[in-house]
Amino acid sequence: MVNPSLKAVRGAFVDFVDDPFSTSQLNSELQSVRYLQDGLLIIEDGKIIEFDTYSNLSDRYAQIPTEVHEGLILPGFIDLHVHYPQTEMIGAYGEQLLAWLDKYVFPTESKFRDVDYARQIASFFLDELLRNGTTSAVVLTTIFPASVDVLFEEAQRRNMRLIAGQVLMSRNAPEYLLNEPQKAYAENRELIQKWHGQDRLLYAITPRFAITSTDAELKLAAKLKEEYPDLYIHTHLSENLKEIEFTAALFPTSKDYLNVYEQFDLVGDRSIFAHCVHLDESAFERMSNSGAAIAYCPTSNLFLGSGLFKLHQAKSPEYQIKVGIGSDVGAGTSFSQLKSMGEAYKISQLQGQSLSAFKAFYLATLGGAKALSLDDKIGSFDRGKEADFVVLDVNATPLQALRNRATKGDFSLEAIASQLFGLMTLGDERSIKATYVAGKLAL
Amino acid sequence: MVNPSLKAVRGAFVDFVDDPFSTSQLNSELQSVRYLQDGLLIIEDGKIIEFDTYSNLSDRYAQIPTEVHEGLILPGFIDLHVHYPQTEMIGAYGEQLLAWLDKYVFPTESKFRDVDYARQIASFFLDELLRNGTTSAVVLTTIFPASVDVLFEEAQRRNMRLIAGQVLMSRNAPEYLLNEPQKAYAENRELIQKWHGQDRLLYAITPRFAITSTDAELKLAAKLKEEYPDLYIHTHLSENLKEIEFTAALFPTSKDYLNVYEQFDLVGDRSIFAHCVHLDESAFERMSNSGAAIAYCPTSNLFLGSGLFKLHQAKSPEYQIKVGIGSDVGAGTSFSQLKSMGEAYKISQLQGQSLSAFKAFYLATLGGAKALSLDDKIGSFDRGKEADFVVLDVNATPLQALRNRATKGDFSLEAIASQLFGLMTLGDERSIKATYVAGKLAL
Repeated sequence: MVNPSLKAVRGAFVDFVDDPFSTSQLNSELQSVRYLQDGLLIIEDGKIIEFDTYSNLSDRYAQIPTEVHEGLILPGFIDLHVHYPQTEMIGAYGEQLLAWLDKYVFPTESKFRDVDYARQIASFFLDELLRNGTTSAVVLTTIFPASVDVLFEEAQRRNMRLIAGQVLMSRNAPEYLLNEPQKAYAENRELIQKWHGQDRLLYAITPRFAITSTDAELKLAAKLKEEYPDLYIHTHLSENLKEIEFTAALFPTSKDYLNVYEQFDLVGDRSIFAHCVHLDESAFERMSNSGAAIAYCPTSNLFLGSGLFKLHQAKSPEYQIKVGIGSDVGAGTSFSQLKSMGEAYKISQLQGQSLSAFKAFYLATLGGAKALSLDDKIGSFDRGKEADFVVLDVNATPLQALRNRATKGDFSLEAIASQLFGLMTLGDERSIKATYVAGKLAL
Repeated sequence: MVNPSLKAVRGAFVDFVDDPFSTSQLNSELQSVRYLQDGLLIIEDGKIIEFDTYSNLSDRYAQIPTEVHEGLILPGFIDLHVHYPQTEMIGAYGEQLLAWLDKYVFPTESKFRDVDYARQIASFFLDELLRNGTTSAVVLTTIFPASVDVLFEEAQRRNMRLIAGQVLMSRNAPEYLLNEPQKAYAENRELIQKWHGQDRLLYAITPRFAITSTDAELKLAAKLKEEYPDLYIHTHLSENLKEIEFTAALFPTSKDYLNVYEQFDLVGDRSIFAHCVHLDESAFERMSNSGAAIAYCPTSNLFLGSGLFKLHQAKSPEYQIKVGIGSDVGAGTSFSQLKSMGEAYKISQLQGQSLSAFKAFYLATLGGAKALSLDDKIGSFDRGKEADFVVLDVNATPLQALRNRATKGDFSLEAIASQLFGLMTLGDERSIKATYVAGKLAL
């Protein structure tokens, strides 16, 4: 008797079995890629139970329903840093970080006091992630506990792997967006007990950034982390020069921005720091030693003019810092991780470096999973993982189809690299033919 | 008796009556914009004969066929620099300018020896421009005269305003892409007589860039310009640091890159120089004095890592250089001038400047027309101009529609600016509802 939840997906699969940054030789980079031109993925109860070539598996699974896809099938994208309340204010004109927060972000976030409104945006936001092939995300909310609840509820309905938490802010923002640290601490405990570990949901302690936190608040954040050691810490670090200057003035005893978080014991292997654009070698080294992860947000860093993240340094043999990619909407200009990758390529080019397609797609899949210490659950097609994946159409527009004539019928890894590079340069949500969450077609 | 070619287009029109860069006051920038919330454009034989509010004109034109459009109607975009033979190699991985030329561009351009192939790409290329709302373009071809013929033929069939010319190259490229200068001179004369001034077509003398030209070739280019003073000069200038270094070595008597072209009398008010990323103040001043124009190519400058063009300096009161926007496909990553504008915004942000929507759209419309000394013919809705225009859907995706809820029903110039900024940040060819060339719907 075949389990009725058993199903098979057949097509061309691309994922990673190693970190392509860990070597500088082209051959070795290719060795990090697993490409099955005609592969079969067997899914049971939303999890991958087999993954191999069609020819190796077809005999054993001839009887189960099989969906066949054209295109390239990759693990679902992981968005390591995104603000759901900023969805509607994407593309806000004319400011860099601090003024942009004051002028656009804070007034928008205040609307999330209204739970119906929050739910509407949460629902749109999650669908937009799925439309763009993103199946997991690390999400900032607002100070309002109900804005956290509705996001988790909507993510649970979609069975997505989502990490989020109430935003902690107790100074340097409008009164209407400040929370009292003790009250927030109590609210966090309730939210943690309610959501952390439910289905695929996980909780992140989320001080917005050092500027909006008092010492008391950061101490309570650390206390929560001590009480619930498997929670994430999710915050911003070293995004913008004026932000860094202001932080230094607010925390005169910290030797640098990262040290603010270090002083409060918030830097560890479940800490995710968005941006890290202006970290120096000392900070890179301490990040590396701590096992903390960087959420690199290319479209945001360009849109706000924050600067050029030193990806190749962070991922160098010297530091080997865990890095994933964040869309950082609303400062980011797209929910598409394809677009994030394309902008990351440009940022690398401006620094005289080339970001290969395999490296970029690694960051958005297995690299993101490793950054979250979730690489036993998501990020590749290894057996036992959750079956989150995306079917990519490399020829979604006439221009892409024309470009890819050169590699038509070529199934070498070089041809796949070219097609993936085309996606990160020219692709968008039209390139996403289908998004599967835990084995089920989403949307 | 009404002329049967008479027709009217009704909708919300946005164009420019002045250069928004010419002032630094917000009020004055807004004064450069002409916005008719309910406007009527009267077209006869492909030209604009009236443009005013619907209420002012409707009595006189009640009898003629009227097309009514939702969305914003703007002048057709002008692409000031684009390589049609590079269409199919858009998004080529991993190199900066000189290596990218050797590895990708030159082999691709060699295929244009085959005229059937050239026609196929020319046809695709022009349709792709139109799909993206671009109605006029300044186009590089190859060294093969037939590759120029087919482009002009296809543009003539579409009645587009197109400026192009045979590419001159006589050294520092593979043998198969070199032309003998005297032969090229003769071929140019033939092409000029055949195409310059035919319908809406104009000719540009097109030395690829200083590196691929000998003194002899640049002298013959100057001779052509002397014989046909109303031709354009179209070439590249100061794109990449290694290119600049190589140019300096090739032309040791020139005091800088621009001076190479100056020494051969190729710098004047019909000269278009693509890129100009690394020009210093002296070069900016000489560009300004000569009346030469810059084709700013944002997506290309980022994709090849060429650098950050100093737009705000070029357009400052001190220099007031004529600037338009080039997609520079295939180094550019999109035919969409909306995307060019979005990337231009990011380049400005990285330099601590803000590029407003009105400034950006000016560059892609009237600014481009002025750069070409064609502002008596294209670039705005003034009476007597050719009726090239584009209908923009500001809500082409769910995300754009959500973003624009904030300005729904608001017809202030500030709301229009926000919607246009949304287009340059989030838009692409889906935002183009319709493209009209000389009064007729294209595609």
